[in-house]
Amino acid sequence: MAPNPNPPQEFAALFAKIDELKPKFIERLQEAVAIPSVSGDESLRPEVVRTAHFLKEELEKLGAKDIELRELGTQPPPVANKDLQLPPIVLSRFGNDPNKKTVLVYGHYDVQPALKEDGWSTDPFTLTQVGDVLYGRGSSDDKGPVIGWLNAIQAHNELGLELPVNLVTCFEGMEESGSLGLDQLIAQEAQAYFKGVDAVTISDNYWLGTTKPVLTYGLRGVNYYEISVKGPAADLHSGLFGGIVAEPMTDLVKLLATLVETNGKINIKGIEEQIAPLTAAEDALYDDIEFDVEVLNQATGSQTALYKTKKEILQHRWRYPSLSVHGIEGAFYEAGAKTVIPAHVKGKFSIRTVPNISSEKLTLLVKQHIDSEFAKLGSPNTATVELIHDGDYWVSDPHNSQFTAASLATEAVWGIKPDLTREGGSIPITLTFEKELKTDVLLLPLGRGDDGAHSTNEKIDVSNYIEGVKTLSAYLHYYSKA
Amino acid sequence: MAPNPNPPQEFAALFAKIDELKPKFIERLQEAVAIPSVSGDESLRPEVVRTAHFLKEELEKLGAKDIELRELGTQPPPVANKDLQLPPIVLSRFGNDPNKKTVLVYGHYDVQPALKEDGWSTDPFTLTQVGDVLYGRGSSDDKGPVIGWLNAIQAHNELGLELPVNLVTCFEGMEESGSLGLDQLIAQEAQAYFKGVDAVTISDNYWLGTTKPVLTYGLRGVNYYEISVKGPAADLHSGLFGGIVAEPMTDLVKLLATLVETNGKINIKGIEEQIAPLTAAEDALYDDIEFDVEVLNQATGSQTALYKTKKEILQHRWRYPSLSVHGIEGAFYEAGAKTVIPAHVKGKFSIRTVPNISSEKLTLLVKQHIDSEFAKLGSPNTATVELIHDGDYWVSDPHNSQFTAASLATEAVWGIKPDLTREGGSIPITLTFEKELKTDVLLLPLGRGDDGAHSTNEKIDVSNYIEGVKTLSAYLHYYSKA
Ligand SMILES: [Zn+2]
Ligand SMILES: [Zn+2]
Ligand SMILES: [Zn+2]
Ligand SMILES: [Zn+2]
Repeated sequence: MAPNPNPPQEFAALFAKIDELKPKFIERLQEAVAIPSVSGDESLRPEVVRTAHFLKEELEKLGAKDIELRELGTQPPPVANKDLQLPPIVLSRFGNDPNKKTVLVYGHYDVQPALKEDGWSTDPFTLTQVGDVLYGRGSSDDKGPVIGWLNAIQAHNELGLELPVNLVTCFEGMEESGSLGLDQLIAQEAQAYFKGVDAVTISDNYWLGTTKPVLTYGLRGVNYYEISVKGPAADLHSGLFGGIVAEPMTDLVKLLATLVETNGKINIKGIEEQIAPLTAAEDALYDDIEFDVEVLNQATGSQTALYKTKKEILQHRWRYPSLSVHGIEGAFYEAGAKTVIPAHVKGKFSIRTVPNISSEKLTLLVKQHIDSEFAKLGSPNTATVELIHDGDYWVSDPHNSQFTAASLATEAVWGIKPDLTREGGSIPITLTFEKELKTDVLLLPLGRGDDGAHSTNEKIDVSNYIEGVKTLSAYLHYYSKA
Repeated sequence: MAPNPNPPQEFAALFAKIDELKPKFIERLQEAVAIPSVSGDESLRPEVVRTAHFLKEELEKLGAKDIELRELGTQPPPVANKDLQLPPIVLSRFGNDPNKKTVLVYGHYDVQPALKEDGWSTDPFTLTQVGDVLYGRGSSDDKGPVIGWLNAIQAHNELGLELPVNLVTCFEGMEESGSLGLDQLIAQEAQAYFKGVDAVTISDNYWLGTTKPVLTYGLRGVNYYEISVKGPAADLHSGLFGGIVAEPMTDLVKLLATLVETNGKINIKGIEEQIAPLTAAEDALYDDIEFDVEVLNQATGSQTALYKTKKEILQHRWRYPSLSVHGIEGAFYEAGAKTVIPAHVKGKFSIRTVPNISSEKLTLLVKQHIDSEFAKLGSPNTATVELIHDGDYWVSDPHNSQFTAASLATEAVWGIKPDLTREGGSIPITLTFEKELKTDVLLLPLGRGDDGAHSTNEKIDVSNYIEGVKTLSAYLHYYSKA
């Protein structure tokens, strides 16, 4: 995808300035990537905090007001160091004009772990340009987009151009480790720091493929369950007890086997009836999306796709539920052979949820299913099923004012309408913002589907990074007029 | 069970001497238990070797000839210290009279790990008498029986009584860690050190219960299998891929679910036909055995027994095959929740084998079963099943001269005929001796079923230990005349 050679006249100066600042923007991302802010590694917590301070200084230089590094207290267990402080949330504000709309931009400055020896071609914490690609941990997830917002502000500043909206930043440092403390902060600041926010924009996902920009209007939820089967008081040796006791593993694999078919069909009664019908309008949204089965096969490195057509694949990824069996706790799991009869085993599975599946109703159906299937076994063991955690699905109106503004911005930058996508996974913070701030949320991704967010050799293409800064900028302008 | 108050006149002096030496015998076991010869702990290897030297010195004092600590070379990987030497086999000989029968006695001087903090009431490596019970690691498995043979020799020596047979000792130090090196040594010495051996006697198992002595004439074998299901090239995230790819775990739990029913019935076609029919004579062997379902329930700490009658339970433990599902490698196995779609999972199960199931035939049937069940799934994944290891079943004639001699010895000591038992597990060395020396093998246990061989608070009752020495002694006399 090449950028639009003839952007609208109103953005000519802004886009030219962004192109001019490209070396500075890459340098700023380099500085951010150089700090190994791995939130999942307790020993690197000072680096995460250092990244917050780096952002604070950058924001100061750009003229932000009310900058705060909001402390969230100590990290709850399990944690090695009981006094470990959570990294702060970086709050700041550009403009406070009651005549302007206010946009809250969210991103995260922590990253996934990365070690050169995991198979990186370059040092993960040295942003390295190879051709038109920038490699480095966090380049795309999520330091690129976070720095992208700062770049957009700098371009305005250097042109002496006022931002068309009031901007509030909310950058967190624990996203890769469960966003601890964020929900409470959002609830607490809804009527304080975040008062008057009209729209929330999150840049923390990806284009569907590698060539066409997208806007994302939906996410599946997830209900995670554990089936617990208990029998003997302690693990037994199969030589002594094989054949004369009811083995919990026998029952558990039979229960797990009843949940879903190889073709993906979920066998739990009552779920299908809850799925929102596919309207012609929704179905039509899939017509223009750029995708095919080969993209899926390449992503899985296999020929294991359950569907062959674009629509079937995307609809089953985004708007239908799915059930995955993840594993078993309490059984033998190592390489080699061990002749144990495990006494207490826990089978883990999850169901990705979509409109209009209610979590409570689903849990009821799951319990009914397991109870009924277990009764059929006539086992002297006991089986129970428990909801471990749940997170709701999210769907927005892809034609509301935010999406419309972002669509126009995309067209201005790339010369093409973005695909309207959903995602199969969840981004729980989306729902929190929507609920607490009572605003719409837009997911506006900068990176490509092959950026390798949590993998080795994570990257962002220079064009995605730089045109991304233009897109963020143009979006603010279109939204200000919506 | 109280010892026979009126033992046969021929053993009056011998049994009286054994009773007289009781303090000395307990002291000898104390010295053996005090050396923490844990073969599974590399750092304790010097202690295992020290135990071999302790035995050598005791054997010397008792007048053994040709004593050798036979080195077995370095321990094969996986091992932390590549130069780690295997502990030696203690070979020795009492008597070499061509007019006498020769009995090889096997035992092991290594033990399972034990730490006070695992829940021991006393120090595991200090033999501690509480009432009529001796607590300590190895007291019953297998230092008690090994020292028991030395005690029997001492009693003869002190009475100036010639041993009625030639005796060869074969004491190993790696039994709890796979008996590394032992098979090769037996094969190598069959026509050398072990030339002329008429009978092998192994004291390394237990009474069925706590009150009645047993002789053991059968062991089940075991075939261990791994079903491997492969799909995507790498683990996937269920948010992104749930519902659109064929998941290996879905297929694996379905395959595992087809193997066996909750009631223990194996579903693999062609196995049942191979089981030796139960004759009236064999069935009658079960009539007198002391056992009931409450013993089983107490052992499992649960009410999970599949059968209620003594005969059904024991026959399903000893003379029918069983199938146990042990676990899954490659899937999520920890506590908590992880939304992974594992790319390559391996299901582990084993089948306990009995006469006349052939390992080769069984593996063929298992492959046919898995192939046929997997074909029904219509999955784009691949599934294969592999034999990881096998060990044959063993059954001896419980009325041959060795068993008859041991039965008479038991009666002389305890005043009761022993129960004739089998075991559900395997003792591979039994088959090796039988095959390499072309002799019969007798399993003559000293300890009780509740000795807790591999558990905390392992013990041997003083009466089992001391009457055991008498039983071993009387056995040699009866066998010499058979
Ligand atoms: Zn992210
Ligand atoms: Zn991430
Ligand atoms: Zn043993
Ligand atoms: Zn043992």
